[in-house]
Amino acid sequence: MQRMDLAAQIRPGATGTAELVVDESHTAPRVGSGRVHVLATPVMINLIEAAALAACEKLLPEGHQSLGTLLNVRHVAATPVGMRVRAMAEVIGVDGRSIRFRVEARDENELIGDGTHERVVVNVAKFDARVQKKLSRGGGAMTAVGVIGLGSMGGGVAQSLLRAKFETHVVDVRAEVVKTFVEQGAKAAATPAALGAVCEVVVVLVVNAEQTEKVLFGEHGATAAMKKGAVVVSSATLAPDVAEQLGARLAERGLLMIDAPVSGGAAKAASGEMTIMASGAPEAFAKCENVFKAIAAKVYRLGERAGQGSKVKMINQLLAGVHIAAACEAMALGIRAGADPKTLYEVISNSAGSSWMFQNRVPHILAGDYTPLSAVNIFVKDLGIVLDTARKFAFPLPLTAAAHQLYLAAAAQGHGLEDDASVVKVYAELAGLELPKRTA
Amino acid sequence: MQRMDLAAQIRPGATGTAELVVDESHTAPRVGSGRVHVLATPVMINLIEAAALAACEKLLPEGHQSLGTLLNVRHVAATPVGMRVRAMAEVIGVDGRSIRFRVEARDENELIGDGTHERVVVNVAKFDARVQKKLSRGGGAMTAVGVIGLGSMGGGVAQSLLRAKFETHVVDVRAEVVKTFVEQGAKAAATPAALGAVCEVVVVLVVNAEQTEKVLFGEHGATAAMKKGAVVVSSATLAPDVAEQLGARLAERGLLMIDAPVSGGAAKAASGEMTIMASGAPEAFAKCENVFKAIAAKVYRLGERAGQGSKVKMINQLLAGVHIAAACEAMALGIRAGADPKTLYEVISNSAGSSWMFQNRVPHILAGDYTPLSAVNIFVKDLGIVLDTARKFAFPLPLTAAAHQLYLAAAAQGHGLEDDASVVKVYAELAGLELPKRTA
Repeated sequence: MQRMDLAAQIRPGATGTAELVVDESHTAPRVGSGRVHVLATPVMINLIEAAALAACEKLLPEGHQSLGTLLNVRHVAATPVGMRVRAMAEVIGVDGRSIRFRVEARDENELIGDGTHERVVVNVAKFDARVQKKLSRGGGAMTAVGVIGLGSMGGGVAQSLLRAKFETHVVDVRAEVVKTFVEQGAKAAATPAALGAVCEVVVVLVVNAEQTEKVLFGEHGATAAMKKGAVVVSSATLAPDVAEQLGARLAERGLLMIDAPVSGGAAKAASGEMTIMASGAPEAFAKCENVFKAIAAKVYRLGERAGQGSKVKMINQLLAGVHIAAACEAMALGIRAGADPKTLYEVISNSAGSSWMFQNRVPHILAGDYTPLSAVNIFVKDLGIVLDTARKFAFPLPLTAAAHQLYLAAAAQGHGLEDDASVVKVYAELAGLELPKRTA
Repeated sequence: MQRMDLAAQIRPGATGTAELVVDESHTAPRVGSGRVHVLATPVMINLIEAAALAACEKLLPEGHQSLGTLLNVRHVAATPVGMRVRAMAEVIGVDGRSIRFRVEARDENELIGDGTHERVVVNVAKFDARVQKKLSRGGGAMTAVGVIGLGSMGGGVAQSLLRAKFETHVVDVRAEVVKTFVEQGAKAAATPAALGAVCEVVVVLVVNAEQTEKVLFGEHGATAAMKKGAVVVSSATLAPDVAEQLGARLAERGLLMIDAPVSGGAAKAASGEMTIMASGAPEAFAKCENVFKAIAAKVYRLGERAGQGSKVKMINQLLAGVHIAAACEAMALGIRAGADPKTLYEVISNSAGSSWMFQNRVPHILAGDYTPLSAVNIFVKDLGIVLDTARKFAFPLPLTAAAHQLYLAAAAQGHGLEDDASVVKVYAELAGLELPKRTA
């Protein structure tokens, strides 16, 4: 395993610079222009701080995880489009436990800041230890891990496992996709059963409950061949009761299960930084510890029973789905009423009407770019699961039902495979609105 | 006027400490235990940074605006309940333009941080200048300002004006409320007309369009007596077309108008830190500059025509109203499905399903505390305005309509005057759910 003393490689007095721009043609909270990559998840920071971190990152040895990752700083809070921050970082001290930087970050167009901000950013105790942990991911005896389903999420998991030097077995119905992973070092299994026979942990990342059923219990299904005590990590979005039943059936066969729905999208899956909303027995978590380190930035442990992870994921999807549809309804009405859409975005992103999804998806509308990061059909499916589950309880969900109808309307209009912000087209087509055009 | 050289009062080497705790019994993103007040609006920071700022604030002379205000750092991002941060700040440098602090902030229970964070926090160029500007609020010739309507928002505006030493005239139908303001130094007017006769700026903060019409154009209405060139600041929530018509009618009488709907709630109004979504002629803004400095932390200038401010406010209210109802629907389903409500809150606050309102209102549900910060009936009214406006355009709003029905259902159940998070009771009463009980 790769192991190194990070501190020994960092030279006091070294300086680095970074420039971050909130790029109009892109999802705004994603900070870019391709110059610096700032990861996007929960903890909010401002662009000033993001630039400061980016400058610090320049001072780390090549191939390291980003400082942002190490510091759990992932999400750049709502920031005006066009905002530009330049930062300079200097290493002012290094010891066994930490690295100190001094940073000057300047909000070039003074959109949120007041000119020059200076801080010595971020001496994190345990920093070095944590870097070591990241570098030694997967250290010790290597578990054989299987991935069933090599779509955008499962493919990312397989990549992350390969990067962490796991013995990675893969299976997918598409031979050409399997081939690309074999070229990267994965071992192709002919069937889920063949994969199950040789793996201690099997990650199932197929599309839905039906496919999960098939790859685990169908003809040549994995469970027929898995050894007792092996773990199924069930990561397709399942209704909580389906996840619960799955856990019981696996237990009957002497197998462990982690109910482990994921979020974060394809980019996070590829970089090994998904969020996992997980529940399962402690012994199952123990067996998956290194696997989760390789594939996830955050693992919420939500209980010991299958179904508990899926419940939290279901509620999150309910809100995410309603919020995207609400963002589309709001922007469409605003445009109809003659408000400037960019101004709406900028003011509301900083007001009580904001949501994570408003901040993330409205830039797609402003840019006229409906390239699917997550497609309309995903929410046709996921809100369908929410509604079906609630129906079993005879529990009414008027907002979720209305949102689901909007995704169905978008799919009916032919936008099912486009970005989920295409829900705005339902309103546009009904009311003859002109939406922002795609910029070159 | 109070004027001072802030830098001269700050002693290098001075130290201050602060402790911030995210208090379970309170709205979580509000940081408290009464020890330190961190203001809550747009720009997101983490609790570490908030504690650092709070410690720095201890080093400022008494009576100053908080550093948070000066730095435009207002909102503490979603943070685990129970999180505790201790910070120590030291003044390390003062010059004519800035103050430098070194800060050590420790995430005591290591919920989001990694132990000790150290930074030299925040040398803001223009800092001193900005302090001077805050201190000199209302400097120069004092404008006579009128406030019509002394409810929670209008009363806060009157307090802020009095604090900034404006000659403040007030009128309200409730004599006992007027009396309390007279005791604080306000001048009581017998009618809106009497107030209009002596004021250069008249802030109208009554409940709705009908009352706005009455106090401006009804019997003894203000406009009959106002001098040409005086400004009406119209801050009740009005439909955009109503605001537009109001501007035209005032212009006919030689009066200026700022379409100035407000947000931020009663606490922000009282501390002079509302957000104003404003449109109007540059000359109107020029006349209101000092008034706005006294009553608002943030003024968005959204155009020169009446109606433009109200459009943005309307879209913000649409989203705020839908998001509160969605938060209630989600939490209710989660409880019905057997998920732990606190866990739901903590995970989703940090996930793609989060919204400003989810973070702000769900703690009321968790605490079983429906003391109205903003009442159900406010959204009965505001979403009504949104729906009425859209109906004039023949524009469908399925989500807003569903959310409005939920506020109406809550009002029908007798919860109209309770906190708007009471929408969760609609679901609870329909489905026989047990919601979290009020803790003592």
